Parts: sequence; structure tokens; C-alpha cells
Amino acid sequence: MLASAPVSRNSAIDLPAEVASAASAPPPAAAARSVVLVGMPGAGKTAIGKRLAARLGLPFRDADAEIESAAGMPITEIFSRYGEPHFRDGERRVITRLLAGPPLVLATGGGAFADAATRRAIKASGAATLWLRCSMATLLRRVAGREHRPMFLNADPAEVLQRLMSARHPSYAEADVTVTCTDESPEVTTRRVEEALAAAVTPQRLSVGLGDRGYDVLVGPGLLARAGGLIGPVLPARKAVVLTDASVAPLHLPALRAGLEAAGFDMLAEVAVPPGEASKDFSRLQEVLETVLSEGLDRRTAVIALGGGVVGDLAGFAAAVAMRGVPFVQIPTTLLAQVDSSVGGKTGVNLRAGKNLAGAFHQPRIVLADTDTLATLPARELRAGYAEVAKHGLLQGALWNWCEQHGTAVVAGESAALTHAVLESCRLKAAVVAADEREESAEGGRALLNLGHTFGHALEAEARFDGTVLHGEAVAVGLGLAASLSARLGHCSQEWPSRVIAHLAACGLPSRIADLPRRFTVEALMGRMAKDKKNRDGKMRFVLMRAAGDCFTSSEVPAEAVTALLRDEGAG
Amino acid sequence: MLASAPVSRNSAIDLPAEVASAASAPPPAAAARSVVLVGMPGAGKTAIGKRLAARLGLPFRDADAEIESAAGMPITEIFSRYGEPHFRDGERRVITRLLAGPPLVLATGGGAFADAATRRAIKASGAATLWLRCSMATLLRRVAGREHRPMFLNADPAEVLQRLMSARHPSYAEADVTVTCTDESPEVTTRRVEEALAAAVTPQRLSVGLGDRGYDVLVGPGLLARAGGLIGPVLPARKAVVLTDASVAPLHLPALRAGLEAAGFDMLAEVAVPPGEASKDFSRLQEVLETVLSEGLDRRTAVIALGGGVVGDLAGFAAAVAMRGVPFVQIPTTLLAQVDSSVGGKTGVNLRAGKNLAGAFHQPRIVLADTDTLATLPARELRAGYAEVAKHGLLQGALWNWCEQHGTAVVAGESAALTHAVLESCRLKAAVVAADEREESAEGGRALLNLGHTFGHALEAEARFDGTVLHGEAVAVGLGLAASLSARLGHCSQEWPSRVIAHLAACGLPSRIADLPRRFTVEALMGRMAKDKKNRDGKMRFVLMRAAGDCFTSSEVPAEAVTALLRDEGAG
Repeated sequence: MLASAPVSRNSAIDLPAEVASAASAPPPAAAARSVVLVGMPGAGKTAIGKRLAARLGLPFRDADAEIESAAGMPITEIFSRYGEPHFRDGERRVITRLLAGPPLVLATGGGAFADAATRRAIKASGAATLWLRCSMATLLRRVAGREHRPMFLNADPAEVLQRLMSARHPSYAEADVTVTCTDESPEVTTRRVEEALAAAVTPQRLSVGLGDRGYDVLVGPGLLARAGGLIGPVLPARKAVVLTDASVAPLHLPALRAGLEAAGFDMLAEVAVPPGEASKDFSRLQEVLETVLSEGLDRRTAVIALGGGVVGDLAGFAAAVAMRGVPFVQIPTTLLAQVDSSVGGKTGVNLRAGKNLAGAFHQPRIVLADTDTLATLPARELRAGYAEVAKHGLLQGALWNWCEQHGTAVVAGESAALTHAVLESCRLKAAVVAADEREESAEGGRALLNLGHTFGHALEAEARFDGTVLHGEAVAVGLGLAASLSARLGHCSQEWPSRVIAHLAACGLPSRIADLPRRFTVEALMGRMAKDKKNRDGKMRFVLMRAAGDCFTSSEVPAEAVTALLRDEGAG
Repeated sequence: MLASAPVSRNSAIDLPAEVASAASAPPPAAAARSVVLVGMPGAGKTAIGKRLAARLGLPFRDADAEIESAAGMPITEIFSRYGEPHFRDGERRVITRLLAGPPLVLATGGGAFADAATRRAIKASGAATLWLRCSMATLLRRVAGREHRPMFLNADPAEVLQRLMSARHPSYAEADVTVTCTDESPEVTTRRVEEALAAAVTPQRLSVGLGDRGYDVLVGPGLLARAGGLIGPVLPARKAVVLTDASVAPLHLPALRAGLEAAGFDMLAEVAVPPGEASKDFSRLQEVLETVLSEGLDRRTAVIALGGGVVGDLAGFAAAVAMRGVPFVQIPTTLLAQVDSSVGGKTGVNLRAGKNLAGAFHQPRIVLADTDTLATLPARELRAGYAEVAKHGLLQGALWNWCEQHGTAVVAGESAALTHAVLESCRLKAAVVAADEREESAEGGRALLNLGHTFGHALEAEARFDGTVLHGEAVAVGLGLAASLSARLGHCSQEWPSRVIAHLAACGLPSRIADLPRRFTVEALMGRMAKDKKNRDGKMRFVLMRAAGDCFTSSEVPAEAVTALLRDEGAG
């Protein structure tokens, strides 16, 4: 009887072809790339560049020398005859030409990478950029006796250098790699540069296509240290407040702070809330707002969330309402936040009436998913976050097959598997969000992301968010229940609940109600589900599946089918 | 010296031509219009219609008879042969044709106005629509013995009527005029219908052009009683919560409630907050959210603000964040709210750090400015609201001349003057908001609406919102100061501050600091202005004027010029 229950008005998930095909493609093979050295006068770009080129077996070129040769006059003369803008245009042409050819090591003049258009051209060329960062003391020693350089004419070198450093360091910070130079020999520095380049991983970048609210999600290791250079270009000003929690702050705030300050950011405030769901409340929101406003937040100041879903939701809501909206940056440090809550713009706090009932859609300007931060995550939290990866797999199809093969590597914290899981989860989520930003589709759309969540939210709420059942654990059980319900209603074969439950269990997740460390009654769970905010006109709304990659929303599930399932699955 | 202070980066207000030209145009002359009678079977549409036509000297037509004649068969036969959809299409064609001709009185079948497309066609024709509303008892008596009507075949008439009334009354409520019929004679009803038509004033309607967030502002008397019919068509469901304050509720809530219930609205909650600025705070917002959510608000439920600016800002913010955004309706009952805060989508609450520092841009679906509600306003509040009208006049130009002629009539509460003031203020504000919804223009744009407000906010804040200085009173003084500052800086002649101050004084408003019932120090006011949220990069930002209709924003006002002005104007 249940197998023939009517399910009308459903619609299969319909993802763009490139999402489906890209999900299990291998990362592109590393090719020989040009290396562009940037930094202050005296940083050693030429000395290190020549040595580096020799070690890499690449030609070395010096952009300033190339310009002088192309112009047939010294740079000082180009400057004095035609002025700086003319020089910068020529410099950009020469650099672009050099980088369009075969791989090489290129030393650039100190002002090249500080010019926005030249910086864009260098980034667009695909070359690796490396900042040779020197202290003022080192630079002063090195430029001593070079007073013939036009910039030091009739001026105190220390003063000139200080002014240039303030102006240019924020641009240099956008380089892919930074190597801090000391007074060691050029050979030692060159070896360190080579090592840093070899270790450098270009973050994977994907776009959330929301028109003028669109943004990029960057996934990879080492992003905190480069945060300022990565987020600076998408913000109206280099001013920020950071919201984090007291567990995350000691682990990751120092790296973020350094990464922001290197790019010239003014940190107006650092606010750490207590860890846990209880911080997602109205009075905490008010307190955060009062603090950041009293520290001078204005309409051009960004709010940066550093932490898990609670911090992201709270900070995002604060950014949405402070002065009716300021720029927002997500730096998720849990797997759950990296694969789910940091993308899509949902922000909010809890009310007594329910979770996330006050909030806003406020898209971030950029998301930095630094996979290094996952190394500090407790194993249980990593597993719980993986439940959302599995959910994305079931929605997407090919990603589910990848999960069945590599899920255990993800929950074991293997770096490549984690990066793939985060990237492909974000790709799936970005596609769904781009098609239905504010969850207004009549069927399907963003509501599909709720697969397993109708049950999951009820289980979580019954456990009263006391920590006995994590969100991801409730979702894992919910996925098993959603697959079982789909099979009972005849939408898919029994193979699917079996595979879903077996895979989640293999990854160390609870996948059935009986796996959870507390008991639930059918009545209580049904009562919770009847109040789900995704319901329409009083009808419970479920996401069901025909197969991985073929899920749909339905408001036509008979309550008796749900009741019977819960009872058979062990609810009292 | 002050006269030559540099003012760079300014831009004059640049309004669309139709805004400028429409500002002082007279309302269109009333022309002879067709009258369409709608209502249940047995309401007397034919009997009253014939008598009304005779009294108005217009031809009478019965839509059902016209359809039968056009089809060459009785309606029962059209229904049974071709079905209802076919009949409705034919009915719509016949009605549209009749209304395209010379004015007439047209009785329609009971289902015509309940058909959405036919209803749109009738409204689009420009005819006046009148609902003859009858009680069930009256209808039952009248249809007794008419069991030959197809709808009563083999059915209990009371049951049929009840079902039809529930389904159709919400549509009938969209008629321009409603006359409730009793068992009086047709002659008496006809006379009452004629009177109601003569008294009916079509509300003035203007559009705020914001694409898919665009909406209409309706200005006129008697809108509360028609609220359901007016707002129903722009909402996803006929479910609402009303937020008001304890002063407004006894005056206007009963009329609004009746107007909503007549159109079939389900009123989930009525929340009355204490009157006054203190209700615009975070814990009040939370309380409102908890209340409306516990009463069953869902994503299709509208939040309706009935009251002044405090209620509108609080309700709008609640609507913006409840479930991340639900539909919102503004029904402003103060002059200040009708001419200013109800249009433009700014919502919010106050923080300790300052006024309106937490909020959202959340545009209403419609604004009903019922000018009848202004009759209950204390004279001082009416005058205070007028300060914003004068500000709009200074921004717009022609409207300022109208103000100088008619401002005293507005503050005296004269109905035609009030309607004109509200309508033209909303027109100016709608044009500014449509060009710069989120106040992102580098110069000019929405910030121009801040004319007089940099000073005004400082005065208000110093008075600590204790009621000694109303917002509009502070703005009035601010307008005088802005004009004086403009003259001191050489942007306009001394004529302008003189005219502004004289006009505001003539309207009974304070227009100089010394007019306010408390003292202010220059230091305190300068300190407040330095923290204004409109400032950019630490520079105070003023709106200055060259003449009425030629205002601009400037961040280049020397602090000494402001200090000197405040001292000369009597700050200590």
C-alpha cells in the first residue's frame, strides 16, 4: 500500500552538465610555470632570481632591463621625460609579453606588482608570484650607497622606504607565496624560495554565480596566512572585524591576524564568542553589534567569520544588519562549515520558536576554505561534517560513487580526499544556490539541500542541542531514514537505503535511530517535523530519492508512512 | 574666508523630468465613468443597477443577458455544453467589450469579479466597481424559490451560498466601493449606492520603480476599510500579523481588522508595542518575533505595520529577518511616516552605539497612506511631520513653492493640502530611492534625503529622545542650519536661509536652535556629528543647497565653519 502512495508535484534535481561531469575529474596536472619575483628595491629580486632560474633550469629575465632595452633609454629618463603612468603602461606591456612566452623566472621592478592593472595581468598569465619580504633594517643596509637610484635623490632613504612599504606591502601580499628574507646568503634564500614554491599549492577556485552578488570559494591549504592578499581585492577597504569562538581563536586567529596585517588590514576588533549553538542567539548578536560598532565599524568595514557554522551564521547575520549591511567574509574552520554553511548566504540566530528563525540572506564576498584548519578538528566533528558531503553525493550522483570509494579517507583526515570533498561539495552547493538563491522554487531547488534534514532537525531538536547528537550525526541518521522512506514509497529499490546506511556506518557515523545515544518517541519526532519551517500550508515536506543524483521534494508523503518507518526504526 | 571654502565632489540632485513636472500639477478632472456592480446571486445587481442607471442618466446592461444573446443560448447551456472555463472566457470578452464603449452601469454575474483575469480586465478599464454586500439571511430570503438557478440544483441553498461567499468575498472586497445592503427597498439602497459612489475617492497611486522589488504607494481617504481588497492582490496569501502601538490600536486597528477580514484575511496576531522610540530596540524586536512565530507566522504571512515611524521601522525589520524575510505592508498613520519613513525600505532598531544602527533594506509590497488617519494626530505631531515635506520641497524645487503657499493649510490639517503634500513627498522620495536603493551613490542619491538631518540627528541625540524635541522639530532646525551653512559657504544667497526659517516658523515649527526648549553646547553637537553614520573615512558629510531643487552632498565642509555657525545660532 505504501509503495503506491501518490507523490505529485515533484521534480528531479537538474544540475548544469559541467557540475555533474566535473565532480570526479582529477585535479589538473602541475605544469612548468613562470615565476615572478616581487618586492621592495633591495629585496634581492635579481640576485635570487638568477640563482633560482639556474636551479629550475629556466631562463632569467629582469623586467627593468627589458624595458630599458625596448625603450632605448634608462628608466630614470623614461620617468623624467614621460612620467610614471607612461612608464607603468610600457612596463605592463613588456611583462605581459614576457609571461606569454615559455616559462621563465622574471624579476620585476618594485612598483610593477603595486600597479593594479599590472598585478591583474601577472595573475591572469598563470605565473606563480613570489614576494621576497624584507625588514626595513635589511633593506636599509642593502640600499646604502645606492643613492643614485632616482627615488632616493635628495631624500632620507629610511623615510622613502617606509612610505613605499606602507603603500606597496598590501599589494605584494597578493602574491601566491611569501618568503621572508633575512641577512642569510643569497644561496640559502634561493633554496628556501625553491622549497616554498615546491610546497605552494594554488588554491582551487570556484564561482558562485549570483550576478552582482556572485563570489568565489577558495579551497586549499595555507589560506589563513595569505588571507589579506586573497580577500583584499574583493573588499571596498582594508578594514575588518573578526568574529570567532573561544576554541578556534587560539588555534587559528594568530595566523589570520598575521595574514591580514601583512596585506595592510586595519583590525578594528576581534570578538570571540563561547563555542556552541547557544551563541546563536539574539542577545549575543546585539552584544557583537554593540562591540564592533563601538570599535568603529563603518559601512566599508568587513566582518570576517573565523570558525564553524555557529560563528558563520552569527557573524553573517551581524554583517547583514550592521548599518543595514556591510561586507562579509567566510573563513570556515570545520568540515561542516566548509562543505555546507559557509556557501549560500544563509545567516541567522535561533529563537525560542525554533532554529534559524531570525536571519537574512547575506552572501559573503569570498569564502576561504583553508583545509589545513581541518587538521585541528576532533575526529567526531570531522565525521559529522562528512554527513553533509555524503548528502551532496546523493544529490549529485557521481560524487556519491566517489564517496563510497574515498569517504573513509575523508573521515581519516587525508589531505587530498578532504580537499576533493570540500571542493566538490561547494561546487554542488554553488550550483543549487545559484539557481534558487532565496529558496523560492516551487519544487526542487534549494530545498533539495534539505535531504535527510527533515528527520535530522527533529532528532537534533529532541536532543535539545545538548551535544549528545551533533548536527551531522542527526543528518546521517536522517539520510538513512530518507532513503528508507523513499524505498517504502516505491521511489527507489531497497538497494539505496542499504548502501546509504552501510556507507555512513563504514565512515563511523550513526545511520539509524538506534545508533544514537538516546531514545526518541514517534510522537515527539512527528510533532517536531510538523513544525519544520520548510513545510507549506501545514503539509510536511520531504526530500526523497529515486537514485543518487535523482532526488526530489514532495509534500505528498502520508503521515502513516512516516510514523510506521520511525516505529520500525526503533523510535518508541 | 568661509565663503570660498572648497567644496569638491558634489553633485546636484538629478530627478527624472516627470517628477519635477508632476509636483504641482492639479489632480486629473473627474470624468463620467462606468459603474460595475458585483456581488452574490440575489444581491440585487440588476434591480439596483437599473435604478442607478436611470438616476445617473447612463444606459444599463446586464452582462449575463449580453452573454446569452451573444452565444445564442442560455448560460446553463453554455455551462453544460462547454464547461465553466469556456464560459468565463466568453464572459470576460463581453464585459471587456462593453466597458470599452461609452459609460454605462453594468451588472455582472456573481462569478465574474471572482475570476482573476476578468477582475484585472474590469480594473484596467477604469470603471468604478461597487460591491453590493448582503448577509446570508438576506440572500437566502431573496433566492428562495429560485431553485431553477443551476447552482442550486439538488443542493441546500444555504450550503451553496456559504461556500460561494467564502470563495468570492475576498475578490469582491477588491471593489472600489462597498455598500452593505439590508432589507430596505431597492430605491433606498440605490440612493445609498449613488451617495457612496459620489463620496468615493479613488486613491492616488504612484509606483516606486525598483524592478521586481517595485511597489505602489496609495494615498487617499478611507483606505483602512478597504485594506484587504487593496493589499490582497500583492501578497502570496491572505494571512497577516499586525504590528501597531498602544496609542494607534484603539484609533485605527478596528477599521483595519474589518477591512482585512472582509477580504478573507486570516489575522494570526495583533501586537501592540508601547508608543515611542524606546520600542525600537533589540529585545522588543525579539519579543515581536517570538510572538508572531508562536502564533503561526510562515513564509507567506505578511507583517503589516499600522502606525508611525517607530512601528514601521520595527515591523519592517521583523519582516526582514523572520524566516529570513516575509512580505511586509506599510500602513503609516502619522504625517511623518506617510511622507518619509514608509517609503524606501529602510527598517531597523536602535543600538546603544546609535540610532538605526541595526537594520535591513526590506521594501514593502505596498504602502497605504490613509489620509483620514491624520485627523487623529496631535497638532504638534502634524507640524513635526511637515518638516519632512518642507525638506522634500527644498530637494524638489517646485514643491517648495507650493509649500510656501500651502504649508500652513497642511499643518492646519486641511484634507486636500494634506493629500497633495503626502503624494508629492512620496513621489520625490520614490524617485530618489529608485535611483539609489541602498544608498550606494558616491555623491547625491539617497544621501540627499539627509538634508537638515546631520544637524537634526545631533540635536535629537543630545535631547536624548526624551520627547522635548521631536524628530521633525530637530529636522526643521536642521533645515534652517543647512541653509545658513550653505549661504555662509557661498553656495546660495542669504535669501535662502531667510526663506526657509521664515516658512518653517510660519508653520509653527522651531527653525533655529534658540527655538528649542533646551540648551546645546557646540562641543556636544560637533561630537555627535562626528559620529554620524553617513560620514565617510572620518569626514563629516553635509547636504548643502544652491537653491530649492539644487542640493548636493559635500564632505569638504571645514569644521570651523560649522562650529562658528552653531555658536552664532546660540549653541553654548
